[in-house]
Amino acid sequence: MPLSWFKAPQPQLSIGVGPWSARRVSAGIFYNRGRVEVPGGFSAFSSLAANHHPEALPRSATRSELDYAPVTVDLPGGSTGKWPSLWLRDNCQCSKCIHPDTRQRLVDTFSIPEDIKPLAVRNLENHLEIEWANDGHTSTYRYNWLSEHHLNQNSSEPNSVKFSPERQYVADDPKTYPTVLFDEVMSSDEGVRKWTDQIYRFGFSFVKGSPPTPEATEKLLERIAFIRPTHYGGFWDFTSDLSLKDMAYTTEGLGGHTDTTYFTDPAGLQLFHMLSHTNGSGGESLLVDAFEAAKTLYKEDPEAYRVLKEHGVSGHASGNEHVCIQPARPFPVLNHHPDTGELYQVRWNNEDRKPIVNASPEEISRWYAAARKFNEILTRKDMERWFQLEPGTPMIFDNWRMLHGRSPFSGKRRMCGGYINHDDFMSRYLLLRDGREKVLGRI
Amino acid sequence: MPLSWFKAPQPQLSIGVGPWSARRVSAGIFYNRGRVEVPGGFSAFSSLAANHHPEALPRSATRSELDYAPVTVDLPGGSTGKWPSLWLRDNCQCSKCIHPDTRQRLVDTFSIPEDIKPLAVRNLENHLEIEWANDGHTSTYRYNWLSEHHLNQNSSEPNSVKFSPERQYVADDPKTYPTVLFDEVMSSDEGVRKWTDQIYRFGFSFVKGSPPTPEATEKLLERIAFIRPTHYGGFWDFTSDLSLKDMAYTTEGLGGHTDTTYFTDPAGLQLFHMLSHTNGSGGESLLVDAFEAAKTLYKEDPEAYRVLKEHGVSGHASGNEHVCIQPARPFPVLNHHPDTGELYQVRWNNEDRKPIVNASPEEISRWYAAARKFNEILTRKDMERWFQLEPGTPMIFDNWRMLHGRSPFSGKRRMCGGYINHDDFMSRYLLLRDGREKVLGRI
Repeated sequence: MPLSWFKAPQPQLSIGVGPWSARRVSAGIFYNRGRVEVPGGFSAFSSLAANHHPEALPRSATRSELDYAPVTVDLPGGSTGKWPSLWLRDNCQCSKCIHPDTRQRLVDTFSIPEDIKPLAVRNLENHLEIEWANDGHTSTYRYNWLSEHHLNQNSSEPNSVKFSPERQYVADDPKTYPTVLFDEVMSSDEGVRKWTDQIYRFGFSFVKGSPPTPEATEKLLERIAFIRPTHYGGFWDFTSDLSLKDMAYTTEGLGGHTDTTYFTDPAGLQLFHMLSHTNGSGGESLLVDAFEAAKTLYKEDPEAYRVLKEHGVSGHASGNEHVCIQPARPFPVLNHHPDTGELYQVRWNNEDRKPIVNASPEEISRWYAAARKFNEILTRKDMERWFQLEPGTPMIFDNWRMLHGRSPFSGKRRMCGGYINHDDFMSRYLLLRDGREKVLGRI
Repeated sequence: MPLSWFKAPQPQLSIGVGPWSARRVSAGIFYNRGRVEVPGGFSAFSSLAANHHPEALPRSATRSELDYAPVTVDLPGGSTGKWPSLWLRDNCQCSKCIHPDTRQRLVDTFSIPEDIKPLAVRNLENHLEIEWANDGHTSTYRYNWLSEHHLNQNSSEPNSVKFSPERQYVADDPKTYPTVLFDEVMSSDEGVRKWTDQIYRFGFSFVKGSPPTPEATEKLLERIAFIRPTHYGGFWDFTSDLSLKDMAYTTEGLGGHTDTTYFTDPAGLQLFHMLSHTNGSGGESLLVDAFEAAKTLYKEDPEAYRVLKEHGVSGHASGNEHVCIQPARPFPVLNHHPDTGELYQVRWNNEDRKPIVNASPEEISRWYAAARKFNEILTRKDMERWFQLEPGTPMIFDNWRMLHGRSPFSGKRRMCGGYINHDDFMSRYLLLRDGREKVLGRI
């Protein structure tokens, strides 16, 4: 690869060896585009002088000053990144350090010298190269990759709350409901991209023109990923005979809820296809966007929001003789990414909720008040989306976001459908949306 | 049911209406065994006087004093429990409030009057009965159930750490390795009970006398629960051809790791059965008890323990073209139950670890130092259990606890096995260990 100073625009880089508290010195030496900084000013070398070694550090330098020597890089686009040397060595992107096929780390992290530091740093055309002083290796990093891996030094406060602008709210008008065609999903990845994009953005989607058979429905679902089995089986095809002991298998009405809160990892997507409904009526379906309801709660009652975000609740599935499933630990109703503060999962199933015992009576009273408020919002008429499922139009939704329910019904309904893990859904969605190169670039 | 004061020993109960800060008054009125307390002393009624109503509260009582009126019950065995009225009404155990088949909650939590309070409290022979003043319902609770549902007012400090004494460490002597017989597992639930008990207590178990076929191995695994499929499929039967792009499918050595740290919910159990090994040698298997190693870390370097307990790390599976799986959020290496402080899951896979970006350089340096220390303990000779897998003796282990690995090998090995979810494993284990009644009694 050619060295980069023949072309513009070029990334700039600088290297500083010193304790974390060291700030960029204003007297940094600039040489062409290779900016070099060494706190204390005892030594400097340019990125251009690839084989130029830094002078020995002063004898007074302590071990902690040597450890994790930070490397600062000015990236294309104007941003600057700073990473510990140990981090950079550990995350070397060369094919000896990351298996080119499996993409797994091959470098033995714990054999890297603790006081590793660069001997030379070179800014090449598309990537940065670092020759290490004390382990005989030369590392490479694409600038795009470095840009994707800025250290988040301002990681979110434990109480921060963010709602992704990508999650959009669908008005209560069946004409605006997100829809794809069975044929486009079955015939092209572009169809699946459109479908998963609707599920991610709006929380649900209808598939029109599906053959009203379990076989076609199963194949449709598998266009996203394999079906997740549970103690109820994998792909299901059932009538309301209560052969499985869960309210879902009755003819009763069901208020809005998310499924499988009794799992450590609740089901990610759920698809329903009503194949037939004979000799009766009723059974309208309900969807409620719990992310939108959470936003409303946050505005109207931040204290209630905080309680539902912080207090863990557990669930159970005990209806069938040979199972009594409970999550490995309690989880809050409102689950947020600890780094970004983004709401990513709502768990709401009052039927399957275990008694709360992990709290003082004061906290319990706060939890009930908060849950009552959230329930009030979730059941507002303008939050509810009611519609009738029809043979030929399966409906799929994000079970980490949308509550679902139904009104009571009479007669015999035949339903089929299944679950998909959220992890597998997100993998499929992001690869189709961004392409493999971009997704891997963020790893 | 007969009233209970004819027999001894009897539970005692008392009821107090007042704010949470109200402490038991020392001048509590005792009447036979029914102890009654009402802070302020304006009114008292005995559990024996089932239809005796409390006087009206003084006009100065505020709303918050009325809400969640606590009910105090002296239970058999000498303990005392205190629960908010709203909690008790919400968790009424009668068959109208909990579906007798599905065990799901039927009472509409959010229709219960916020200021619900008891009109009468009766201690019957095996259960407590509460007649509510303001919703027309009478609730029942078995005393055993109440005993199991003491409110944990001392829920663990965020930094508390506990190691379950049930998790036992197996010495490095193959004669002491936990073992069951294929026939006992296949022929009786008692065999499965013994098997799952070994897996839970010791982290692993060998099954002797298995037919060396995939069919028999699959049936064996399904004695615990259904097999969990992943993007690699369900039950697997493979040789080292790298048809699937993961290091597991090579002939290379693998250091100790847990599997599927790239899932929100890593695989719970993993079973390996080596069906054959021809034209080569090597491929010894490794197990390391990471719970035991964590205990050692806690003793030797509590600060490192804290860092691995608090700092989230993410993983990825990107080796195959159509997947790039990542957990919904980062998880720490050492995962603790938030209420009990018990270590319940270790996630340790350096190969699949994503670069850490959700931290300042200082925190990253601390994380690397802590991980290095944990790795040093995990790789101590006395932590490692090396053995050779043999046809006819499948080995199963708890992937939330035990690291596994192998030495490099030559020749052709045929392996089969699969995963089981931890939730499904725990369901099966606890039901077999304690029986359905006892397990449901804790719900």
